[in-house]
Amino acid sequence: MQNQKRIRLRIAYDGTNYCGWQVQPNGITIEEVVNRAIQKLTGEETHVLGASRTDSGVHALGNVAVFDTRSSIPSDRFAYALNQRLPADIVVAESDEVPLDWHPRYQNCTKTYEYHIINSRTVIPTKRLTNYFVSFPLDERRMQEAAAYLIGEHDFASFCNIRTNVVDTVRTIYDLQVIRSGDEITIRISGNGFLYNMVRIIAGTLIRVGRGFYDPEKVKTMLEAKKRTQDGVTAPAHGLMLIQIAYEEEKRKN
Amino acid sequence: MQNQKRIRLRIAYDGTNYCGWQVQPNGITIEEVVNRAIQKLTGEETHVLGASRTDSGVHALGNVAVFDTRSSIPSDRFAYALNQRLPADIVVAESDEVPLDWHPRYQNCTKTYEYHIINSRTVIPTKRLTNYFVSFPLDERRMQEAAAYLIGEHDFASFCNIRTNVVDTVRTIYDLQVIRSGDEITIRISGNGFLYNMVRIIAGTLIRVGRGFYDPEKVKTMLEAKKRTQDGVTAPAHGLMLIQIAYEEEKRKN
Repeated sequence: MQNQKRIRLRIAYDGTNYCGWQVQPNGITIEEVVNRAIQKLTGEETHVLGASRTDSGVHALGNVAVFDTRSSIPSDRFAYALNQRLPADIVVAESDEVPLDWHPRYQNCTKTYEYHIINSRTVIPTKRLTNYFVSFPLDERRMQEAAAYLIGEHDFASFCNIRTNVVDTVRTIYDLQVIRSGDEITIRISGNGFLYNMVRIIAGTLIRVGRGFYDPEKVKTMLEAKKRTQDGVTAPAHGLMLIQIAYEEEKRKN
Repeated sequence: MQNQKRIRLRIAYDGTNYCGWQVQPNGITIEEVVNRAIQKLTGEETHVLGASRTDSGVHALGNVAVFDTRSSIPSDRFAYALNQRLPADIVVAESDEVPLDWHPRYQNCTKTYEYHIINSRTVIPTKRLTNYFVSFPLDERRMQEAAAYLIGEHDFASFCNIRTNVVDTVRTIYDLQVIRSGDEITIRISGNGFLYNMVRIIAGTLIRVGRGFYDPEKVKTMLEAKKRTQDGVTAPAHGLMLIQIAYEEEKRKN
């Protein structure tokens, strides 16, 4: 019998067919499918601990999860072995060993998300599940102007789903860029953590600014209000992708 | 009762969930779903005529189809009205009226296809249904060198599925580019027409060249052989997208 070790996985997925990350009674989740694949591989009852509990329809390039095992499989081979047992829409990109007390949520880290918009009158069917199609013209310079107010340490209470009861709503956004390339607009945001729905509320609010419904200064007013008002519109889940979680001890590359 | 008129549709679709364009007994096809949407809209029994009978899994931005109707709906409103009756993976991008004898296959036109490759060791799940993932390194300069032999009027008998009985295998390729952007390689090809599986066989052959299995000159030898040998490997359907069909009288933009 091997000693127990903790394996960390970097997991990419297409969230379309899942009810989000976290196990729940109403439908199949990514966490559940990953648990099952590990159990099939090791024969051990397993419950992974995930870094980010992404919502239904949200995608990931680099979510992180850990689990403990006594399996003799080398740590870096778990990625390959699990991919043989996972469906095509969930891929383990890498695996390594971490200390037994390493927890993916209780570590300083930088999380990076992208929100993908296609600003076009016509929907491209192959992109419908990974982009939010906005048919009215968006001014990305106004969006970037508004985004600038959000960078830094702020109380983001106004940019948080009201159905959450987290006490501390202060977070730090390190960077927030609105990048247009033809019809495609990408909102790229990095921070030390995000409140429930925070990225989608920021995206939805910036879209209102881009459309001309809100002035860029509206974002500043919302920040200062520190209230979970409903001024910030939540953009749909399927445009969102968790790009990377970089832990401080290492700053792994994407 | 209105006079009969012929409506032309430009149709975009995600081919993932369909057995290709053409009606067939073994599964649901795009043609069939479009027929049903038109029938629901006009109340008339309808059979569209498609320009390109794309294979199962192949996608389109601009396939073209026509149908005849006595409906009083303005020609350019069919796009909107049909989209209300189509599933999300099939979209009519535009509609207009053409002469009653206009046939989408018996017209001089330029067809443009793209074949999408991601050259990476790790599969990105959200891109798995629209890109062919190639894990070994591809040299796109070698691929472009090989591609140059194919441009112009040639007998493409060696680049044709053996299960076809077309007599004339001469076609003209106007342009063929291999474009790399980071991990993404796009093979973009325009011509006056393509034999069955021709674009996928060209893509599969260029991938062999890019990998180093074939010299670029191999493509020249294959062309000269004018035989349906199996040297050309058929790349998988899901990497292929029909971008545009530009008819000579108008050269509609994408």
